[in-house]
Amino acid sequence: MSRCDELARISATPGSIERVYLSPEHARVNRLAAEWMREVGMTTRQDAVGNQLGRIDRAAAGGAPDPDAPALLLGSHLDTVPDAGRFDGIVGVLMALEVVRLLRTPAPRDEASTVALPFALEIVAFSDEEGTRFGKALLGSSAVAGQWSDDWWALTDADGTTLREAFLEFGLDPGRVAEAARRPDELVGYLEAHIEQGPELDDRGESLAVVSSIASARRFQLTVEGEARHAGGTPYDRRRDALLGASEAALAVERICRGEHHIIGTVGRLEAYPGAVNVVPGEARLSLDLRGEFDGERDRVWLAIEREIDEIMGRRGLRWRAREVHSAPAVFCAPLLQDVVREGIASTLPAGADDPAVIFSRAGHDGMAIGALTGVGMLFLRNPDGISHHPDEAVSAGDVARGIQALAESVLQLAADRA
Amino acid sequence: MSRCDELARISATPGSIERVYLSPEHARVNRLAAEWMREVGMTTRQDAVGNQLGRIDRAAAGGAPDPDAPALLLGSHLDTVPDAGRFDGIVGVLMALEVVRLLRTPAPRDEASTVALPFALEIVAFSDEEGTRFGKALLGSSAVAGQWSDDWWALTDADGTTLREAFLEFGLDPGRVAEAARRPDELVGYLEAHIEQGPELDDRGESLAVVSSIASARRFQLTVEGEARHAGGTPYDRRRDALLGASEAALAVERICRGEHHIIGTVGRLEAYPGAVNVVPGEARLSLDLRGEFDGERDRVWLAIEREIDEIMGRRGLRWRAREVHSAPAVFCAPLLQDVVREGIASTLPAGADDPAVIFSRAGHDGMAIGALTGVGMLFLRNPDGISHHPDEAVSAGDVARGIQALAESVLQLAADRA
Repeated sequence: MSRCDELARISATPGSIERVYLSPEHARVNRLAAEWMREVGMTTRQDAVGNQLGRIDRAAAGGAPDPDAPALLLGSHLDTVPDAGRFDGIVGVLMALEVVRLLRTPAPRDEASTVALPFALEIVAFSDEEGTRFGKALLGSSAVAGQWSDDWWALTDADGTTLREAFLEFGLDPGRVAEAARRPDELVGYLEAHIEQGPELDDRGESLAVVSSIASARRFQLTVEGEARHAGGTPYDRRRDALLGASEAALAVERICRGEHHIIGTVGRLEAYPGAVNVVPGEARLSLDLRGEFDGERDRVWLAIEREIDEIMGRRGLRWRAREVHSAPAVFCAPLLQDVVREGIASTLPAGADDPAVIFSRAGHDGMAIGALTGVGMLFLRNPDGISHHPDEAVSAGDVARGIQALAESVLQLAADRA
Repeated sequence: MSRCDELARISATPGSIERVYLSPEHARVNRLAAEWMREVGMTTRQDAVGNQLGRIDRAAAGGAPDPDAPALLLGSHLDTVPDAGRFDGIVGVLMALEVVRLLRTPAPRDEASTVALPFALEIVAFSDEEGTRFGKALLGSSAVAGQWSDDWWALTDADGTTLREAFLEFGLDPGRVAEAARRPDELVGYLEAHIEQGPELDDRGESLAVVSSIASARRFQLTVEGEARHAGGTPYDRRRDALLGASEAALAVERICRGEHHIIGTVGRLEAYPGAVNVVPGEARLSLDLRGEFDGERDRVWLAIEREIDEIMGRRGLRWRAREVHSAPAVFCAPLLQDVVREGIASTLPAGADDPAVIFSRAGHDGMAIGALTGVGMLFLRNPDGISHHPDEAVSAGDVARGIQALAESVLQLAADRA
């Protein structure tokens, strides 16, 4: 918990938490995470996309390290949204460190860098899960999954810096990004602990849950075009006010999604241009984030939203267009990894307790990208009142302790299963 | 017209027009306007608030200049909104220059710097009519009217620069701003030509109108507070989405004002915070610009809007507050100056034509501040389709020529009236 506080002080914005991809803060948290990884006996490296990795080899025959063994990947991400909380992603990386500390083999000499498991352990601290800086999420884990797209080099941040320029500024070589990709045969699977980012565990009064799947998500950038005119001189029947069209669209997203189960749509950004107090807005831009448990349901709702926005803009004499900036199919957690997470959680419960909760994740996670490479398992921690992406985001020390125990037990169960 | 094009090239933004108060572009247009003023025989100065002034004295007894004569002030403003047109304000300053050129006394020697009128002529190019930079309009004319408020020094622009700092950067002394104020006995009145910024003359098929009054206006900065939460994990019944509340408020302003005569309300700015694609907005800020012909009507509509916003925010679990950033009572043009403008326009019409149009200005003008100092008269030029504060803003060369003739005739009528 004190390390969560320590990482929270590494921020671009004094008094609040903001760490975006390829920023000076990104470099600082990587250095600190690497130091902590070495402290538990890991060898460390920063990969070609800026993820921080640590590895501790399995003990091979004779007790010597076995650098060729496939690894179980444990981890989460260290980047944040603006004005973030101190646990989203972060607590998963720090819990992985504690799991390695619990599981490594104490030894008199350099064998301290081995674990008594049939696989190596790696910790990954992904560098861009949130997509805050370039509007494209999962950049770090997409590179590891071998799913980098050269189209992304031209993405720009709010200051107009391209992703390619940011790579160079950070000291990474864009030409070598493919080196971040892992091969399936190098990996046993990926296990991540994360706060729920929703109220379900808190409502049930439980600490931990098995994650069954990660939401299907699409993100759009919508542009509405009307005509900028003088606010005083233009009567309503001459106006084509892009902001009012955008406002109606945002409300339509809420209205349509409220009528659906398991579909959530959010307009997180909205700006009006030229943005002067005395000018009727001629253009408005808004973001739309749409999530659902199943891809088909999500796509059907997007069609309904499109039809509704067509009607709004037609009635107001506005043009509009949508650019899809992110699309991810639902990712189902690997049955074996769901089982070991369930057993891990059960080991923290009193005998005779109900089975652990199983939750579908509406929030996106690095596992969405990593699922293309290897099996994914996830464990959720209770998140009081479901408050996340907010300074009040919380998790209890007791739940984190239970989570570390459950995660370590999951790793041992997986080891037993493979032995 | 070519000078309008020349001024349009002085912009902070290549490819579009933007000149805000106390910017390098402000300094450049002042220098150019001063050059043009000297070209028609005026002596020039920049006043203590950054307005550019030119003066040509009346011919006193013996044909010598009379520096103590009260002056008729002609002019408008040279600052712009972002992505502006090339005529709003600008054409009024340039027309005043042509009026001086027409009315000055040609003379063999230095008497060229006199006019054959019972008063001096001054041209004023006001420096901040739009209020784009500091959110407070009419800064230039308020200083001339002796209505500067020391509260304004702490106003900040989008970069956090205070008005006081901007004064110093521009080379003005904040301690001397009071020197920009004029005394009523120094002035005969204020006459301004301006594009209509509305479609009424275009709809009537007429070139010029007498302005009867300038709208009563209030401006507010509204802040809506909810709670930032993760977009995926937070079900709708747990959300307090500030952007959706703000969207409803913007639509309510439109709905309420549409039901009124002569009241126009505009939301020109709206921003959501933290403004991330995957975070439910915890805060939203919006501007409201409210205008009406009569103060009482405008205030009654604001009360109705307040009640409606209370209902919206109460229903959505949001808090809100409004800060009034601008308030100006309706200003009625001086009857004598309305008369001379009417006679001026009539002189451009064929015999037997209908009386010139009389229009109430929904847009604000420097006359709103100057009305506290001296009588105000205004002449409107046809503005095709009423498009203003937009790159497509237009005015025809023919209408400008008629406007110059009408304005010169108005000055002669005023001279005859006072003689």
